[in-house]
Amino acid sequence: MKPGSVGYVTPQSMRFDEPLVLASGASIAGYDLTYETYGKLDADRLNAVLICHALNASHHVAGAYVERPEQVGWWDNMVGPGKPVDTDRFFVIGVNNLGSCFGSTGPMSINPATNQPYGAAFPVVTVEDWVAAQARLADRLGIERFAAVMGGSLGGMQALAWAIRYPQRIGHCIAIATTPKLSAQNIAFNDVARTAIQSDPDFHGGDYYAWKTVPRRGLRVARMIGHITYLSSDDMAERFGRARRHKSGDDDYTFGYGIEFEIESYLRHQGDKFAEYFDANTYLLITRVLDYFDPARAHGGDLAAALAPATCRFLLVSFTTDWRFPPERTREIVSALVAHQRDVVYAEIDAANGHDAFLLSDERYHRVVAAYFENIARELAAPPAAEPAARAAA
Amino acid sequence: MKPGSVGYVTPQSMRFDEPLVLASGASIAGYDLTYETYGKLDADRLNAVLICHALNASHHVAGAYVERPEQVGWWDNMVGPGKPVDTDRFFVIGVNNLGSCFGSTGPMSINPATNQPYGAAFPVVTVEDWVAAQARLADRLGIERFAAVMGGSLGGMQALAWAIRYPQRIGHCIAIATTPKLSAQNIAFNDVARTAIQSDPDFHGGDYYAWKTVPRRGLRVARMIGHITYLSSDDMAERFGRARRHKSGDDDYTFGYGIEFEIESYLRHQGDKFAEYFDANTYLLITRVLDYFDPARAHGGDLAAALAPATCRFLLVSFTTDWRFPPERTREIVSALVAHQRDVVYAEIDAANGHDAFLLSDERYHRVVAAYFENIARELAAPPAAEPAARAAA
Repeated sequence: MKPGSVGYVTPQSMRFDEPLVLASGASIAGYDLTYETYGKLDADRLNAVLICHALNASHHVAGAYVERPEQVGWWDNMVGPGKPVDTDRFFVIGVNNLGSCFGSTGPMSINPATNQPYGAAFPVVTVEDWVAAQARLADRLGIERFAAVMGGSLGGMQALAWAIRYPQRIGHCIAIATTPKLSAQNIAFNDVARTAIQSDPDFHGGDYYAWKTVPRRGLRVARMIGHITYLSSDDMAERFGRARRHKSGDDDYTFGYGIEFEIESYLRHQGDKFAEYFDANTYLLITRVLDYFDPARAHGGDLAAALAPATCRFLLVSFTTDWRFPPERTREIVSALVAHQRDVVYAEIDAANGHDAFLLSDERYHRVVAAYFENIARELAAPPAAEPAARAAA
Repeated sequence: MKPGSVGYVTPQSMRFDEPLVLASGASIAGYDLTYETYGKLDADRLNAVLICHALNASHHVAGAYVERPEQVGWWDNMVGPGKPVDTDRFFVIGVNNLGSCFGSTGPMSINPATNQPYGAAFPVVTVEDWVAAQARLADRLGIERFAAVMGGSLGGMQALAWAIRYPQRIGHCIAIATTPKLSAQNIAFNDVARTAIQSDPDFHGGDYYAWKTVPRRGLRVARMIGHITYLSSDDMAERFGRARRHKSGDDDYTFGYGIEFEIESYLRHQGDKFAEYFDANTYLLITRVLDYFDPARAHGGDLAAALAPATCRFLLVSFTTDWRFPPERTREIVSALVAHQRDVVYAEIDAANGHDAFLLSDERYHRVVAAYFENIARELAAPPAAEPAARAAA
């Protein structure tokens, strides 16, 4: 695994004029998807890997932009030449999901029915809707079948939905730090975040674009709450502990309600940064996408039944200190797959960084992913006739 | 342990005209403390038990008010005739702390210097300041020494501070579901709650009384966050799971951002209720009291050194699913006390209800507390000469 970068990249946009009927029954008349690609699609078009993003990320998975070289892709440590998802071997696609705020059609976009931004009128979508939109993008890019669909957290949910919905179009499902459904506590945190946004007077019921306001205060609180759930308590203790921000001469407390501890400074800074670039309606939408994901629901809660259509192979990874989507949740998926004798590799990584670990460069974690992708590459390089035999033996 | 209630009770108020110099260096010119008592003080005045409250509770520990019979004290299951803290044997005192909003002097009270409510001008107090104010109340009630000082969560911190600061005035320290100091994660949750309140436009920098507003939206979010941390994830899963609030005919999602799940309904209701009765400045103040508690701080982080002055005996209780103040935190206190060969009883209760367990009627928990108080009662009934001998043997 050599270090390397995909270098400078340029986002692209694809227009879809055929309406997309959503899980809710509503439909989006037409839409754009913003995406990036890294590496080269082979002549046989079998080496494509789709990377699905989580709550606040985007199509910008790897590399940098010429005009903003510091803005490196969110999974740049994972995707690139010689990296675990090796762009010397794979053609990697990152796509911004419908309803997000980084170029694809979402609440900030103009609603053709009103010539105003969608705002609150943008329909609630689901993981399955996203996957349907991604499949259309694959069609247009001439990709019949992905070597792998991969994602962490909410991205992992999309990978699972691909495995269920398009079993013939996905060779491997790589789902990291994810869950088959949110717990009551997960939903609770999302709902507090939504309540903070909705109760910001600058929110105007979601139509704040018309008022030329941004519900920054609500977004800030929402992000601060989210951020706490991404880190482990031990990691926070290690990184911040009770360290003080402004030490006075005698090291006494300030006895006020401003920033006293480093952790407060860090969290407020994270909240402020987030409120500058993220759209509040998108935050509402994507937290709802998370809440609603529950493939077992249509099967009376039977996850194995929900996963029965999947025929691909699976790599599942969880992290010991992830209390947002703890290893138990991933083990539920493993058990459900094993019940159908699916081919599953499961790695539980002893990492300190909580849910955030999926974005970090833990060596063991990256080695597992790299080894898994080496196997995929070997499989693709093998003469096509050999593949079904290998499958049957697995 | 027979069931029983202390019956109807009447809060009382005590005026203190001598200024109280606070840990911050500021002082409060004069103040009132609201308190309640249950049971009878013995002629020798040795059977008094002080109960210290946590964030949102008050002096109203047990019994009910004639005019509001439904408003039962917050620890009514613990304190009463035949209950673990048996008011047939003990004289129990509940006191509303300085800066709280249930009768004692706090941010809502009139600042004699301005003839306006204190608001943002109310000084930040500490656990130690509270304990000093409680000691003055004890003086006025003619109580030289408490048989026990007892509390859960923030109340447990006060019990610990009593043991350290007034070793001669406390026979037993009973600290439940508490911690020797907040973790970075604990502080983080408090800070998000404060940020929610401070960024509510109705907060007006803490002087909302003058504006005749109440930062209800901020308080609501603050309480929702707090509430999540009081319950265990498993308990939430058990009680709410992914149950839906409004089931439509076909059991489909509503595809909106209103209340979809039971847990959302529950949390928002808790938030709304809280915002009706709790003062926002008090919320800021009491979360800061929590943040600042750290008796080891003055001893270079050495908790054993901080606890060295304590000579009383200790009952410490923690709950397995409490992730706010988990058992490890209480075990730190146990270790520090054992280092000084103090007499400690420690019970780790296998309870499902997270931090909230300290308020609930878990049978094993209540049996531990009841047995401990029976010993205290026996000790008090023994001829005084026997006591020092028993001590030395312990």
